[in-house]
Amino acid sequence: MRQSWVLKVGLGQINPTVGDFKENTRKICSYIESAERQELDLVIFPELAICGYPVWDLAHKVSFVKANLKSLAEIAAVTKRKHVTAVVGFIDLAGSGSPKNYNALAVIRNGKIIHKQYKTLLPTYDVFLEEIFFLPAKNHSVFSMKNTRFGATICEDIWDDQYAVKPAKILAQKGARILINISASPYHKETLLRRNETILRKAKEYGLWVVYVNQVGGQDDLIFDGRSFVCDPKGRIHFRADAFREGLFKFTFDLDSKHPPVIPAYAGIRRPLDSRFSAKVRGGLVRTDFAVLFGERGNDIIVIKDMYEALLTGLSDYIRKNRFRKVIVGLSGGIDSALVATIARDALGPQSVIGVAMPGPYSSKHSLKDAKTLAQNLGIEFRVKPIRALYQRFIHEAAGEKRKRGVRPMEHRTITVAMENLQARLRGLELMYLSNDEGAVLLTTGNKSELAMGYSTLYGDMCGGLSVIGDVYKTDVYRMARYRNTISQVIPESTFKKPPSAELRPHQKDQDSLPPYRILDQILFHYIEKNQSLPEMVKSLASKGISERTIRWVTQKVDANEYKRRQLPPALRITEKAWFGRRMPITNRFEK
Amino acid sequence: MRQSWVLKVGLGQINPTVGDFKENTRKICSYIESAERQELDLVIFPELAICGYPVWDLAHKVSFVKANLKSLAEIAAVTKRKHVTAVVGFIDLAGSGSPKNYNALAVIRNGKIIHKQYKTLLPTYDVFLEEIFFLPAKNHSVFSMKNTRFGATICEDIWDDQYAVKPAKILAQKGARILINISASPYHKETLLRRNETILRKAKEYGLWVVYVNQVGGQDDLIFDGRSFVCDPKGRIHFRADAFREGLFKFTFDLDSKHPPVIPAYAGIRRPLDSRFSAKVRGGLVRTDFAVLFGERGNDIIVIKDMYEALLTGLSDYIRKNRFRKVIVGLSGGIDSALVATIARDALGPQSVIGVAMPGPYSSKHSLKDAKTLAQNLGIEFRVKPIRALYQRFIHEAAGEKRKRGVRPMEHRTITVAMENLQARLRGLELMYLSNDEGAVLLTTGNKSELAMGYSTLYGDMCGGLSVIGDVYKTDVYRMARYRNTISQVIPESTFKKPPSAELRPHQKDQDSLPPYRILDQILFHYIEKNQSLPEMVKSLASKGISERTIRWVTQKVDANEYKRRQLPPALRITEKAWFGRRMPITNRFEK
Repeated sequence: MRQSWVLKVGLGQINPTVGDFKENTRKICSYIESAERQELDLVIFPELAICGYPVWDLAHKVSFVKANLKSLAEIAAVTKRKHVTAVVGFIDLAGSGSPKNYNALAVIRNGKIIHKQYKTLLPTYDVFLEEIFFLPAKNHSVFSMKNTRFGATICEDIWDDQYAVKPAKILAQKGARILINISASPYHKETLLRRNETILRKAKEYGLWVVYVNQVGGQDDLIFDGRSFVCDPKGRIHFRADAFREGLFKFTFDLDSKHPPVIPAYAGIRRPLDSRFSAKVRGGLVRTDFAVLFGERGNDIIVIKDMYEALLTGLSDYIRKNRFRKVIVGLSGGIDSALVATIARDALGPQSVIGVAMPGPYSSKHSLKDAKTLAQNLGIEFRVKPIRALYQRFIHEAAGEKRKRGVRPMEHRTITVAMENLQARLRGLELMYLSNDEGAVLLTTGNKSELAMGYSTLYGDMCGGLSVIGDVYKTDVYRMARYRNTISQVIPESTFKKPPSAELRPHQKDQDSLPPYRILDQILFHYIEKNQSLPEMVKSLASKGISERTIRWVTQKVDANEYKRRQLPPALRITEKAWFGRRMPITNRFEK
Repeated sequence: MRQSWVLKVGLGQINPTVGDFKENTRKICSYIESAERQELDLVIFPELAICGYPVWDLAHKVSFVKANLKSLAEIAAVTKRKHVTAVVGFIDLAGSGSPKNYNALAVIRNGKIIHKQYKTLLPTYDVFLEEIFFLPAKNHSVFSMKNTRFGATICEDIWDDQYAVKPAKILAQKGARILINISASPYHKETLLRRNETILRKAKEYGLWVVYVNQVGGQDDLIFDGRSFVCDPKGRIHFRADAFREGLFKFTFDLDSKHPPVIPAYAGIRRPLDSRFSAKVRGGLVRTDFAVLFGERGNDIIVIKDMYEALLTGLSDYIRKNRFRKVIVGLSGGIDSALVATIARDALGPQSVIGVAMPGPYSSKHSLKDAKTLAQNLGIEFRVKPIRALYQRFIHEAAGEKRKRGVRPMEHRTITVAMENLQARLRGLELMYLSNDEGAVLLTTGNKSELAMGYSTLYGDMCGGLSVIGDVYKTDVYRMARYRNTISQVIPESTFKKPPSAELRPHQKDQDSLPPYRILDQILFHYIEKNQSLPEMVKSLASKGISERTIRWVTQKVDANEYKRRQLPPALRITEKAWFGRRMPITNRFEK
């Protein structure tokens, strides 16, 4: 009977910063040192770990690619006279003046690159545009460690259903027993479901162990969840690394062991809040069984806690990587700004957040009160800056200017759309003044439902450097806020209870001019995420009592407001179809 | 001796509107009727003529594709019992649930589709993302008319240098003598050069006559110039249709004629101003030899008149296709806003333009005077709305709020960046109030040089629905303005003569903090359009006395201001690399 085959692997789930070669390289080298100290055989880093992902047009810049090759050489040097083998993602220069290069990986041992593999399948859809930047691999080969053949692939290479070439299959046919996949696979709320669905199936289909190592952290609109894992050729998960947490995670292969896997496919979702998160949240109520909420929407699982952590990651990395220290949130007393302020406080700490209430001519008393209570609960700085005087002055001047031109001003007899927008824009003006004056980033508070419908004011509430919940439907805003309050009660109950209102005219309510959000959000989900046409939507939604007339009205509103979204700041992506990956013409006369 | 072979062709250079199936179909049918009346043998329409180009994610929507197939059937019906054959671009459904479809053409005769060809080469770079939406053709075949074989291709199919498959070559090998190419090839200032360079070369290489039919008109950021043409297998142009003008252009093939071509390769650029343009410009000074200005920049030909007409087309189509009737331009007395107002007036007529001067605390007297003179010269409505009182009020409140918090206000002792931006934003506030109040589109007046450097205020002078000169370098702004003044003297001479200034503080001049524009624009050209790295730029620009230090400073400014451009409205594209086709991360620590 032969001895058990054992291999100690480190999953180097790192959070690189795009273009920060010095820091990314330092991190990779320190992980290699650590892996060596821990006597690991193999340490694996994500796709394009050296330069970060995605780099967009930087991939075309020769100096950028050369800087990344220089880093690769430094990393190789660190492996000299070490036992551990490293797998690192980088860009390889195609040479001979080609504007496109290779998305590549190197297997490095004792100072030498012993194996290279280029990415074959270049995703070009939604938020991916890799055909623009990279050339596909033509060749596929395996490499050996401990008398076992390994195949190494990059991200999409294992998502081969839609492609004729199947790199993982080719490598299996060449004798690979273990498939490494280095990824930069961005989070959306169904991403874990999709990954399990596909990768576990592929492991079974090709009879391979899969070691999947994914990037973690935020990069502009995109959030990477990490959640690297190891599965066996029966599609059973043996190990899963934490979500949204950087680290060197260890797994020991024992291919001949008869022990069954101990981790169910969904492991990692149901785990308690991790330490990073709990450290950020005060109040002692961190650990809770209510951490995971499941809902039903088109048979997809919604994981609210996961979304919340994704937004924490996206926000904190945007701020940190761009070297800001403070953020500003306009607090209206409503649920959207309350959630954004709470996320900001949980991500950055209370000292880094300034909340500003800006009561206007039609603000209710409870708005100011709720904003103040929230700020107190969060422990953040709170300021009040009414816009009433400026509003009156502006209206007065506008009316005067009209009279001079012989036009009868409407300003003193009604509230026009211009006057509603003016209120939102005066708030934008105040917030941007603070932002410039104090070097703090203004956070945009609009949600996906209102951005879809154009119930947001350009240069008003759409101002800001980062849209935190621009990809979160209003119903999910409530769910996330409810979830967060189970950890500690920070958002006032009255903020949940009152009907949503922009308070730009007396007695205004969102639901006076919009369908109820639970209806609206279903329509938007089918229109935006499923890209359904009118007849398809009527069919999908008829059973829920949603009329064709409502669907038509909603989708026309969505189309008509494309021009506003074109000017939206980056909006953290947490759904399968965010604004960022949706490309629609503004000039568009298609009527469904 | 056999009789001369003659074929009468109509080049249906139309301006479709994306998604407007009714109107596009009506137009195509009326062109077919007209071609029949004129006894033409063949009438050819551009790429995706039925649905317009580009349609982006609409291409994934089944109902959209079905609507376009219904239009195709209507067009086919119109050809019944007619002599003329029609070639029409449309989307063909791939079927079996494929999210991608075919970018296709149909050759239609007497009610029947006698030939179909799908597009093979799907451009995926810069402003093109066709791999996302379409599947490539697998098969290529010819069709016959009058005993002669024809090949039909779509746009990129003839730009085959970077591709392994060469559809035009395959069709030539199958006996095609005449190659039809239907295109939606967007304008940029070197586009004619590129087209001549490539297509005439391909005609020679494959020994083909080429009939090239291009879309005309504006679609959001993109402008299509038309300029359809016919060339022979020696690469000589026999006919070129007007630029920027919709029409049915006729050409008679006489393959056996010994007459040489009469039109030089650049025909169409040097022609006098066309009737559409002259009709829009008042003053009687329309026809001028000065209409074409050539300049030198990296060996590329700059055609100022062409750029001017492109912007007229882009602006007028954006306004018309989106059913607006009026535009607003903030007039500072400077060259940028003067040029934008002039373009708007030439594109839409003086009744459709409102100019607004908004003097601030640091505006010079000549600013208001120059703005007024310009408006008078253009014959547009002119309003004055000072921002001084609102500015003082805001500053006073901001200082008061600081005192309340125990912070010493700086507002009364210096002019901070926040205060400079405040002035720009108060102007944005005024303009957007007018825009909402009067249902007019605000035009954004910033140029490419200042957008590159971040010398523009988010939610201030960056406000607007369309950026008219956001892709025009400052030096080209001057050239275009000079050119336009040769037609009639509308922009005051003092606007040219005074040093550019934002006038947000006393005695401020652009050149106090920026290199001279003739230097700056060269750096920007190499960095943005050529995507060069620092060493490459130093090499390119050293001979012009531009230092590495200046280049480094400029490129770092460009990178640091990516976040502002992310919120720019659509900017009409007239260069080879506009903001729209440039994809850079905001979070980016690469230091060249």
